[in-house]
Amino acid sequence: MTLTDIAPAGTAENVQSDDADVGAPTTIYVCITCRRPDDPEDAPRPGAALAMLTASAAQGRGVKVRRVRCLANCKRGCSAAVRRDGAWTYVFGDLDPASAGTALVEGALLFAGATDGLMPWRGRPEALKRGLIARVPPIDFVEEAE
Amino acid sequence: MTLTDIAPAGTAENVQSDDADVGAPTTIYVCITCRRPDDPEDAPRPGAALAMLTASAAQGRGVKVRRVRCLANCKRGCSAAVRRDGAWTYVFGDLDPASAGTALVEGALLFAGATDGLMPWRGRPEALKRGLIARVPPIDFVEEAE
Repeated sequence: MTLTDIAPAGTAENVQSDDADVGAPTTIYVCITCRRPDDPEDAPRPGAALAMLTASAAQGRGVKVRRVRCLANCKRGCSAAVRRDGAWTYVFGDLDPASAGTALVEGALLFAGATDGLMPWRGRPEALKRGLIARVPPIDFVEEAE
Repeated sequence: MTLTDIAPAGTAENVQSDDADVGAPTTIYVCITCRRPDDPEDAPRPGAALAMLTASAAQGRGVKVRRVRCLANCKRGCSAAVRRDGAWTYVFGDLDPASAGTALVEGALLFAGATDGLMPWRGRPEALKRGLIARVPPIDFVEEAE
């Protein structure tokens, strides 16, 4: 691979494989145990559907998707978290299992291209604005004065 | 320092300095911008008070405390996050600024001593059970099957 093969950060049009370089590697963790309060415990969980659709939306776009049992955001599922090493971590909730997969991948790509370690607000999919639950600074974060 | 100087993980009785070895290093990030819905915007923020009391409770116990402007858990402040490199990350909310500092330090010490990278539920201070907002797996997390 040469430098000219690398797609500009945040755009995925030219990306052909899961290892595509779209900026810093990001990972989406989708909670597969999330369900709505009225859903039966033993039925297929909306969280599992969201995980499947997110993995499908991420195909060939340079974003990893991992399934996880419980992100402890049970009151506001479906839930997912987006991580990038050395950058902030984001937790999202109130996600619609049918549509949020695409939003999560778009958000992860936007995040991958950020130069300040923050997921940009501008251009962030609506579901990741409305559904922001929390964000956590990177481990080497220097504290902010009041 | 010799091996016999190292306090058992999770206990802090013999710890004399901030660098004390109490297990894996943990960091508490306290949101200093948190306020209750009715608090004026320009008054001293409860979050800032919580940060001060947490730092004071952590003194000499081997836990780092960092102030951060906004963990995006604004609806359920006061807020704090606890991180340990290579382990899960925890976000807590609905924290009482007057009392949660001690709970956060106790929780961080419990977490530091855990061998599985998870903050134990047993022995975890009540405020960190009730106030659990979300948890996020470490970056090298292997996905869980359904």
